[in-house]
Amino acid sequence: MQETRLDTARIRAARRVIDPVFLDTPLYRCEALEPDLGCEVSIKLETANPVRCFKGRGTELVTSLLADNGSRAAVCASAGNLGQALAWSGRRRGLDITVVASRHATAAKLDRIRALDAKLELVDGDHELARERAAAIAHRDGLRLVEDSLDIETCEGAATIGLELVDAAPSFDAVLIALGGGALATGVGHVVKALAPEAEVICVQPLGAPAMTRSWRERRVVTTDTTDTIADGVAGRRPIPAVLDDLLLVADDAVLVRESSIIAGMRMLHDHAGLIAEPSAALGIAAILEDRDRFADRHVVTILCGSNVDGDAYRRWTA
Amino acid sequence: MQETRLDTARIRAARRVIDPVFLDTPLYRCEALEPDLGCEVSIKLETANPVRCFKGRGTELVTSLLADNGSRAAVCASAGNLGQALAWSGRRRGLDITVVASRHATAAKLDRIRALDAKLELVDGDHELARERAAAIAHRDGLRLVEDSLDIETCEGAATIGLELVDAAPSFDAVLIALGGGALATGVGHVVKALAPEAEVICVQPLGAPAMTRSWRERRVVTTDTTDTIADGVAGRRPIPAVLDDLLLVADDAVLVRESSIIAGMRMLHDHAGLIAEPSAALGIAAILEDRDRFADRHVVTILCGSNVDGDAYRRWTA
Repeated sequence: MQETRLDTARIRAARRVIDPVFLDTPLYRCEALEPDLGCEVSIKLETANPVRCFKGRGTELVTSLLADNGSRAAVCASAGNLGQALAWSGRRRGLDITVVASRHATAAKLDRIRALDAKLELVDGDHELARERAAAIAHRDGLRLVEDSLDIETCEGAATIGLELVDAAPSFDAVLIALGGGALATGVGHVVKALAPEAEVICVQPLGAPAMTRSWRERRVVTTDTTDTIADGVAGRRPIPAVLDDLLLVADDAVLVRESSIIAGMRMLHDHAGLIAEPSAALGIAAILEDRDRFADRHVVTILCGSNVDGDAYRRWTA
Repeated sequence: MQETRLDTARIRAARRVIDPVFLDTPLYRCEALEPDLGCEVSIKLETANPVRCFKGRGTELVTSLLADNGSRAAVCASAGNLGQALAWSGRRRGLDITVVASRHATAAKLDRIRALDAKLELVDGDHELARERAAAIAHRDGLRLVEDSLDIETCEGAATIGLELVDAAPSFDAVLIALGGGALATGVGHVVKALAPEAEVICVQPLGAPAMTRSWRERRVVTTDTTDTIADGVAGRRPIPAVLDDLLLVADDAVLVRESSIIAGMRMLHDHAGLIAEPSAALGIAAILEDRDRFADRHVVTILCGSNVDGDAYRRWTA
């Protein structure tokens, strides 16, 4: 395969830097989901850790390098999960973390960012405005700007999930990956294509936030003016060119799913697997629900990438 | 310490027999729970596996010995979790498993037992009647009777959780363990008292099913005529003498909690930790809620031992 920006040896080495609380997460067949889905389903669970999402794998790398370089502070834009993870990783290394988020972000995520001692700055706009504001703060204050999916550590941290997938037996036919900025998809995709190339790498995005999927399909950056999805963690509008280049090398497909399928996926995970998934984490199940024939009798792994939800909304979705 | 029936070397060896899907489960600080509880809380999560509870650790041992001895079948009584786990472990070793349960057991547990190809026999009575019926079937058909908590494999399987607790840093001040038949409590308690004796081993039972706790307090078997609790997994009435003897050696305390505290615990785990817990798995949180002063500023580990709930009841409890 043509080379992505990621490096498999560096990803292996990353395991030594990342706090073990984020590594070697549960991976198991979930037969209770299978009658409704018509295929073998394994869950890779990234929610049973201090920040209830996979982002700690990347922020551990970022902050460890920052600390090694004598940096004292960093800033990022976040829909809420990267911010929590950066706050968690930064706090244990004595870094001052600033997180910029949309005022409309999931309240539970914002509360956790504050609780983890980060400075939280809210913008009156969406995640793309938060990205602009974070960049401006970094420039003004001379801080390191942590850019999700662009910064290679965020991709290679996520890629350690891929190592755990390919190292585990038995093998799988396809992996379903939530697609937002692309760190998770390019990270896991890189490792799977490098070490288990026969497995299909399928990215899943909401129909209401399709910028990266459209970009992948057209092989050029396509932006959108708005997003309209409950899957706040993947609701970007402006794909990053370098990330798209990597995604073009590692993704076998990128599919879009309806909001109703995301909600059905969350409900199935709740009722049949006993797992709380945030909307982005249910994208894989949603993709199976929308195309059962494609996956029939195959062994599919889906990564449950986060469980940070607002209680009232979650109860409504799973009622 | 005086010797229990359990053996630490044998528990270490058990790790080689148990399917890795049950081992090395997540263990992490859950700060989001701490403001309401007033202490440091770590979660040991036993729900992210194919049977959504810790019982697979024990049934892997039981069935591996059975298969080694050329046995073809086994029977157990179960409130639902042991039965699922025995069915899962038995199926992969080609054993015919019969599970006897109360007709009033959690429906989701009974459904999963059937789905795992076990023969399910229901009795018109509670778990103690199921135990009698399972013994009668074993006698009639010449089958191995798997007795939870009495059979040393069920205790030593559960005890591998204890190894994972004491091997992990940082150390903890107390571990809160759901107390039912006693396999989990004597198993984890044995290892903690052997390898981290300074940590307090605290067993927690519902006020509505207090037989083992009363027995521990009076240092003799005390039975009750009925049980009245939503914590179906720990609702026994007739403690086993040999298990009580072990519990007397390893438990520092046994406490009883109210149903309202169990429900509050489930709700907190849902809202602040993003975890679905069955009532038995919320006993530890309930114990903290009922005695915040005792745990103030200490580091407490609670074992989330299962997540098998009926959807409607769970929604009601966490609404």
